Amino acid sequence: MKAEQRQGIEEHRSLGERLQATRALTLALAEPLSDADATIQPNIDASPAKWHLAHTTWFLETFVLRDHVPGYGPVDERWAFLFNSYYEGEGARLERGRRGMITRPSLDEVRGWRARVDEAVQESLPTLGAEALTLIELGIHHEQQHQELFLTDILSTFAANPLEPAYAALPLRERVAAAPMAWLPGRDGVVEIGTDGRGFAFDCEGPRHRALLHPHALASRCVSNGEWQEFIADGGYDKAGLWLSEGWDWVSREGIRGPLYWNKDGSHFTLAGRRERDPAAPVAHVSYYEADAFARWAGARLPTEAEWEDRARLADAAGGHQLDRAGAVLPAAGGDWFGDVWNWTGSAYLSYPGFRPAEGTVGEYNGKFMSGQMVLKGASCATPRGHSRASYRNFFPPAARWQFTGVRLARDV
Amino acid sequence: MKAEQRQGIEEHRSLGERLQATRALTLALAEPLSDADATIQPNIDASPAKWHLAHTTWFLETFVLRDHVPGYGPVDERWAFLFNSYYEGEGARLERGRRGMITRPSLDEVRGWRARVDEAVQESLPTLGAEALTLIELGIHHEQQHQELFLTDILSTFAANPLEPAYAALPLRERVAAAPMAWLPGRDGVVEIGTDGRGFAFDCEGPRHRALLHPHALASRCVSNGEWQEFIADGGYDKAGLWLSEGWDWVSREGIRGPLYWNKDGSHFTLAGRRERDPAAPVAHVSYYEADAFARWAGARLPTEAEWEDRARLADAAGGHQLDRAGAVLPAAGGDWFGDVWNWTGSAYLSYPGFRPAEGTVGEYNGKFMSGQMVLKGASCATPRGHSRASYRNFFPPAARWQFTGVRLARDV
Amino acid sequence: MKAEQRQGIEEHRSLGERLQATRALTLALAEPLSDADATIQPNIDASPAKWHLAHTTWFLETFVLRDHVPGYGPVDERWAFLFNSYYEGEGARLERGRRGMITRPSLDEVRGWRARVDEAVQESLPTLGAEALTLIELGIHHEQQHQELFLTDILSTFAANPLEPAYAALPLRERVAAAPMAWLPGRDGVVEIGTDGRGFAFDCEGPRHRALLHPHALASRCVSNGEWQEFIADGGYDKAGLWLSEGWDWVSREGIRGPLYWNKDGSHFTLAGRRERDPAAPVAHVSYYEADAFARWAGARLPTEAEWEDRARLADAAGGHQLDRAGAVLPAAGGDWFGDVWNWTGSAYLSYPGFRPAEGTVGEYNGKFMSGQMVLKGASCATPRGHSRASYRNFFPPAARWQFTGVRLARDV
Amino acid sequence: MKAEQRQGIEEHRSLGERLQATRALTLALAEPLSDADATIQPNIDASPAKWHLAHTTWFLETFVLRDHVPGYGPVDERWAFLFNSYYEGEGARLERGRRGMITRPSLDEVRGWRARVDEAVQESLPTLGAEALTLIELGIHHEQQHQELFLTDILSTFAANPLEPAYAALPLRERVAAAPMAWLPGRDGVVEIGTDGRGFAFDCEGPRHRALLHPHALASRCVSNGEWQEFIADGGYDKAGLWLSEGWDWVSREGIRGPLYWNKDGSHFTLAGRRERDPAAPVAHVSYYEADAFARWAGARLPTEAEWEDRARLADAAGGHQLDRAGAVLPAAGGDWFGDVWNWTGSAYLSYPGFRPAEGTVGEYNGKFMSGQMVLKGASCATPRGHSRASYRNFFPPAARWQFTGVRLARDV
Repeated sequence: MKAEQRQGIEEHRSLGERLQATRALTLALAEPLSDADATIQPNIDASPAKWHLAHTTWFLETFVLRDHVPGYGPVDERWAFLFNSYYEGEGARLERGRRGMITRPSLDEVRGWRARVDEAVQESLPTLGAEALTLIELGIHHEQQHQELFLTDILSTFAANPLEPAYAALPLRERVAAAPMAWLPGRDGVVEIGTDGRGFAFDCEGPRHRALLHPHALASRCVSNGEWQEFIADGGYDKAGLWLSEGWDWVSREGIRGPLYWNKDGSHFTLAGRRERDPAAPVAHVSYYEADAFARWAGARLPTEAEWEDRARLADAAGGHQLDRAGAVLPAAGGDWFGDVWNWTGSAYLSYPGFRPAEGTVGEYNGKFMSGQMVLKGASCATPRGHSRASYRNFFPPAARWQFTGVRLARDV
Repeated sequence: MKAEQRQGIEEHRSLGERLQATRALTLALAEPLSDADATIQPNIDASPAKWHLAHTTWFLETFVLRDHVPGYGPVDERWAFLFNSYYEGEGARLERGRRGMITRPSLDEVRGWRARVDEAVQESLPTLGAEALTLIELGIHHEQQHQELFLTDILSTFAANPLEPAYAALPLRERVAAAPMAWLPGRDGVVEIGTDGRGFAFDCEGPRHRALLHPHALASRCVSNGEWQEFIADGGYDKAGLWLSEGWDWVSREGIRGPLYWNKDGSHFTLAGRRERDPAAPVAHVSYYEADAFARWAGARLPTEAEWEDRARLADAAGGHQLDRAGAVLPAAGGDWFGDVWNWTGSAYLSYPGFRPAEGTVGEYNGKFMSGQMVLKGASCATPRGHSRASYRNFFPPAARWQFTGVRLARDV
Repeated sequence: MKAEQRQGIEEHRSLGERLQATRALTLALAEPLSDADATIQPNIDASPAKWHLAHTTWFLETFVLRDHVPGYGPVDERWAFLFNSYYEGEGARLERGRRGMITRPSLDEVRGWRARVDEAVQESLPTLGAEALTLIELGIHHEQQHQELFLTDILSTFAANPLEPAYAALPLRERVAAAPMAWLPGRDGVVEIGTDGRGFAFDCEGPRHRALLHPHALASRCVSNGEWQEFIADGGYDKAGLWLSEGWDWVSREGIRGPLYWNKDGSHFTLAGRRERDPAAPVAHVSYYEADAFARWAGARLPTEAEWEDRARLADAAGGHQLDRAGAVLPAAGGDWFGDVWNWTGSAYLSYPGFRPAEGTVGEYNGKFMSGQMVLKGASCATPRGHSRASYRNFFPPAARWQFTGVRLARDV
Repeated sequence: MKAEQRQGIEEHRSLGERLQATRALTLALAEPLSDADATIQPNIDASPAKWHLAHTTWFLETFVLRDHVPGYGPVDERWAFLFNSYYEGEGARLERGRRGMITRPSLDEVRGWRARVDEAVQESLPTLGAEALTLIELGIHHEQQHQELFLTDILSTFAANPLEPAYAALPLRERVAAAPMAWLPGRDGVVEIGTDGRGFAFDCEGPRHRALLHPHALASRCVSNGEWQEFIADGGYDKAGLWLSEGWDWVSREGIRGPLYWNKDGSHFTLAGRRERDPAAPVAHVSYYEADAFARWAGARLPTEAEWEDRARLADAAGGHQLDRAGAVLPAAGGDWFGDVWNWTGSAYLSYPGFRPAEGTVGEYNGKFMSGQMVLKGASCATPRGHSRASYRNFFPPAARWQFTGVRLARDV
C-alpha cells in the first residue's frame, strides 16, 4: 500500500469519525424532547426539531447515498418531499409553513432513519470518490448549522408555550463582571479577506480577495444586557431619529420594546426557562434594526464585515463560549471574538468579487440568498465548536432575532 | 332512607355511570394517537386532540369541582389559560390559533389529569346538589360534542400530512346500493318545534314554540356521492348562476372543485386513509354554499329547520349510522334521518321566540354564536349515539366543511 | 284610438316622467362635487359618486337600450367593463376595489353619457314592449337605491379626508325633543307579509305568504343618540356578555368605541361637516352587532322582519324624514316608521317560501345575496321618498355601518 | 457695493431663477391632468400628482419660509398633516396609503398655494442667510426628484385604468438601431468615489472616499427590449436556477412573466398610451431581481456602484435622453451613460465611510433609508436634465419596477 493510499484511508477514517460525532451530537440535542416537542413549528422562521433531524439525514441520503452509492434505495422515497428545505433542483417540496404538520414519521422513526443512513454512509466510506467525500464534508458542516438552528428553534418552540417549559438545565457557570469596553484600533488600507483555501469553507466565503479598510476601531467586547437596559431607559425604542426608516416601521408595527424573550421584570426566557438577566452578559436576540439604532445612540456604528474579519483572524475561532455538548446554552460575560452571540455587521450579504456558486444542486446552498440579508460574523453559544472561522459569513434578514444575535460596536478614527 | 332519597341516589349513580362511559369513550378515541398526533393544530377551525381531552376536563374541573366541591384545588391552575375555549366569564385564554403550541403538558399528563378529575367528580357525586348535577349532565353532552369534533379534527390533522396516514382501520361494512330518492310530503300549517322539556336539551333548543310550515316535501334520503359527481360533471362548480354571491366568491377565491377530501381519481381521504369513494354513500364535507348550489342545480332547495324537525320527530334519533365505539367512521348508504351526515338547512341559526340563555358562564354556550351560522339537523357517523334528537340545533358558518356535513333536499309542493 | 291604448300611452308618459325625475335627482346630488370628489373610492364598501352615475346609466343602456332598442349602439362599449357592478351574466368586470382608479371618463363625460342614454330611452319609450317597460321601472327603483348609496358613500368619502369637508349645508330644521318611548303591542298569530302585488316590488319581497307572529311589542320610536350615550357610559362596549361572539371579536379587533363618525367631544361627522350631536335624534351608523348588544343591554331584543312589517303596514311609507331633494341629510327626532334610519331586524336575509328570482340577468339582483346578511326595514333620511314600503327588504352584513342604520327595539309580551 | 455683495446678489438671483424654472416645470407637467387624474393614488408606492405638487410646496413653506422668514404664516396650517411625506421630526402625518383620499384642497387650490409660496420665497430671497439658501438649493433638487416621480406615478395611475388613457403625445423621435454591445474595460485598484464637494450633492453621496475596484469590464450600453425578449423566449422566468431565492418567490407569488407594462402582443403601456415596443430601446421597468437574473442568464453580473461611478465620471451627466420639458417620455436607443433608464447595481444602499446625515429634520432625507434597498446609478428619460451626476445614488427596494429602471451588464476580467 502506498503512502498516498494510506493517507487517503486515514482521511476517510477521520472524516467518518467526524461525521459520526456530528450525527451523535444532533441526537443528543434531541434527547430532552418529547415526540410532540420535536414536531410542532412555532413560527414560519423556525423548523421543528424532528424536521432538523430528518432534513440533515435527507441531505446525506440524497447527495451522498443516492448520487454516489450504486444500489442504495431510500428508506422511504416519499420523505424527500417532506424534508427537502429549499433545493429547487430536487423538485417539489412541502411548503415551509407546513413543517409542523408532520406527526408521522414519528421522532423514533426519524431516529431509525438516521441510524440506517449513518450505517450506509459509514459502510460506503472506503469506496467513495473525492466528490462524494466532499459532499460528506459539506454534510458535516451543514448539520452543524442545523444544530445551532435546532437550539434556537427549540427556544422558540418552548417560548410559544405560556407555561414556559425548560428545555434543559443550564450548566452552572460562575457569573463574571463585564470587562470594561475598550476601542481596539484596526488596520486600514488594502487587506485580504475571504477563505484562504486551507480547511473547509462554504462557497460564499471565497474567493479570497483584497478589501479596503478605512481607519477605524472595534469594541473589545460585545454590548451587554446592562448597556442595553440603559438604551431602553433612555427611550431608545421611542426616538424615531435613532432608527432606520424600515426599523422604525417594524418597531411601531410590532410593538417592539426590547430584545426578544425579555420580560419587564428583569428576567428573560432561556433554554433553561425563565431566568434573571445577567447585566454583564452580552445582549442577545436583537435584530439588525435594533443593533443599528443602539450603535447610533452610542455614537458609534456597526463594523463592516471586512473590519471584523481582519481583526478576528488574530483570535481563536475555536475559543470562547461555543457549543461543546448537548444542553442548554446562554451567552455569558467574559467571552471573546467567537462565541456567545453573532455580531451584526453593517455589510449586506452580497457576493464577493469573482464568486462562483458550487456546482450542482448544492450550489443552491448560499448564493441564491444574496439579497435582503445582512452579514453576521463570529459564532454564538449555540455554534458547535469548530464550525466557525474568521471568514465565515452568517446572514439573516434585518428583522430576524430568534438567533443568538448581538452587537459589537465600531467607529471611525 | 326514603324512597325519594333512594331515587336521588339512583339518579346519581346513573349519571355517574354515564359520565364514566362518556369519559372512557374519549380516551378510547385517543388510543391510536401519538403524543405528536394529539398535539398539532392543522388549521384555525380544528383543535388538537389533546386539547379536546384537556378542555372537556377543564370544563368539569371548573364548573363542577371548583364551583361546587369545597376544598377542591385544580391540578394545575395555569392550565385554565390553556384549555378554556371561549368563556369570556372565565378570563383570559390562549388565542385559538395557538392551540397547537402546547407540547406540555404531554398527552400522558393530560390523561393523568383526566383520571384525577374523574375520580374527584365520582367521589363528590353523592354530595352534589341539583345545580352541580345539571352541570355534570351538561358536561356529558359537552364532551359528546367534542368527541365528534375529535374525529373531524383528527381527520383534518392527518389530511394535513402529505403521507396521508390512517387514523384507524375502517370496520368492514358491506356496501349497499343507494335507495331511490323519493319525495315525502311534509305537514303544513302551524306545528310545534323545539325541545319539549323531556330529557336533556341545550338552551338554544327552546323554548318549544309554534312554527308555520308551508306546503313542502322532503327527500327520503341524502344526496349521494354519485349524484354529486353528476353535479361536478355538469359544470356545477363553473356556473356562477347556481351560486350565492358569497359562495361564488368563495369557490373562486379558494379554487374549490369538489367536496373537501375528494381526489380527482375517484378516491377521497378518510379516517382510514385514502379510499375509493362509494357512489351510493351520502356525500359529506360540503359547505352550505355547495349544498345550496347543488339544490338549485337539482331544481330543489334546502329544507327549513322546522320542516326537517317536524318530519324527523317520527324517526329514531338513536338509529342510523352513528358512533358506537372508538374507531374510524365513514358515511354509508342505507341510513336514516339521523346519522351519516348532518343536513344543512336553509335556516340561519338565530334565537327561538322567547329564548333565554342559561344562567352563569355556561350561558355563553350557545346564544352568543347566533350570527353568521346556518343550522344543521340530524347527526353524523361521528355523533355519539344518544347525543342527538329532532330538536337538536347544530350550527356552522356557511363555508365550513371539515365536519361530516351533507345535503337532504326539499321542495315546495 | 282605443281607451286601452290611451291608457298604455299614459302609463308610458308617466313612466317616462318618473324616470326623468329620478335621473334629474341623481344629477342634482352630484352638483356639489368636484371631478376628484366624484372619482375616489374611500373603501371597499363604498363606490365613487361618478361610478354611481355611470353604473345606473349602464343599467339602462344595457338592459333597456341594448336588449330592446334595435340599432342602438353603446356610447363606448369599453365602459361596460368599468360600470357593471356584479352581474356575472354580463361578463368580466372591474374588480370592486379598483373603482376609484377610473379618472377617465371624467365626471363631465359621464354626465354626457347620461344625457345620451336618457334621450335614447325617452325617444324609444313609445315603441317599447312590456318587458322593456318593466326594466325601466326596475331601472328607476335601482337608481333610487343608488341615490341613497350615493349619499352614504359621499359621506364616507369626505370622512376619509382629515380636513373633514362638508358636502353641502344642512337645511335648517328645528330640533325637537325625543318623544317618550312607548311599547306598542303587535298582533300575534298568523299574518300575511310580503308584497301584495299592487305597485312595484323587488322579486325578493314576494311571494306574499303567511307568517306566524308570537306575542310581542314594538318600540314607538327609534333609539336616540342620548340613549346610546348612556349605553356607552355604562360600559356597553366593554362588556363581552352583551355581545354576540362575532360582534365581540369585531369590537375588539377594530377597536370600536361608538357609532361610526362619532367623536369623543359630543360631535359627529355629517354630510354638513362636523356637527354637535342631537341627543334626541335617532342614533345612526351602528352595526347589527351594536344594535343587538344595545337591545340586550336594554333588556329587549330586535324585532323580526315580520313583526316590523305587520305593524308598519299601518304607517305611511311615504311619510317621515326621507329624501325629497338634493342636499345634506341627517336623522332627526320626531320621525315615524319610515325615514331617518333603517331599522336592523333580528331576521337573516333569506328567501321567502316559494321565492323565484326574476328571469334573466336581472335575476341576479337580489336572490344571490341571500347569505351572510341581516334584513333592515323602513327607510332613512337618504332614501328617496316613494322608494320604500312595508314589504321592502333592505339587507347588509352585520358589521356594516356606513349606511344610515339604527335601532328600534322589540320585546316579548 | 462691494464685489462680494454683488456676487452674493447674483447668486441669489441665479438661485431664484433656477427655483422658478423648476417650479414652472412641475406645473407644466401637471398641465394635461384633470383634477381627478391628479388626485387618485394607484398603489402604495406611487403618490398622486397633486400630492407631489403640494408636498414640494410644503417643503419650501416649512423649511424655508416658516423657519427662516419671520412673520410668514402658512396658507393653511392643516395642510402640513396632509403633505408631509416621512419627516418624523415634523410630527404626525397622513398614512402613506391614504394619499389618494385628498380631493380637497383641489388641484386649483394647490396651484394657488404654489403661487403664494413661490411669491413669498422670491420676495424673501434677498434677505435670506446661507442656511436658508442651502435649503432652497435642496428644495430645487428635491422638487426635481419629485418631477421624475410625478411622471412614473402618472404612468402608474393611467396604467390602473383599463381604458389605458394617454398622458400626452410622445414627441416624434426617429427610431435608431441598437449599437452593438461592447465590453469596456474599467480601472482597477484604489480609486476615489463620492461627491468631490464641487456643486450640489445630497448628503449620502459623501464623503468622498477611496474604493477598491477589482478587474472588470462594463457593457457599452444597456440591455435592450429585444435582448429581454430573448431572455423570456429562453424561459428566463421559468428557471429557478437563474434567480435569487427572494426573486424566485416574488416571481412565483406575483405571477411575473415580463417587465411591468409589457403586453404579450409586443406592445407596452407608456405615457403616450399603448405602443409597439422598440426592440432596440433599453428595457425599462424591471426589478433588481429581474436585472440580476438576466445578468446570470447572460453569463455576466451587475456592476458595483463604484465600478459604475468610476467609469461614468468620463461621461456627460447632462447628456443623453433626459427630461428637458414637460411631456411624455420613453427610453430610446442611442443613449449614453446618463438617461433613458436608471442602472441597477449589485451594491446595497448603505452609508459611505464617515457618512454623517445633514443636520436638522432634513437629515431624514437619505440616511434613514439605508436598509433593504439597492443602488441605481445614472439617470432616466424622466430625470430633469442637470439633476444627476456620477456620484448620484438613487435607491429602491429590489422588487420595485414602476420607475424607469434598466440594466447595464458588467463582468470580471
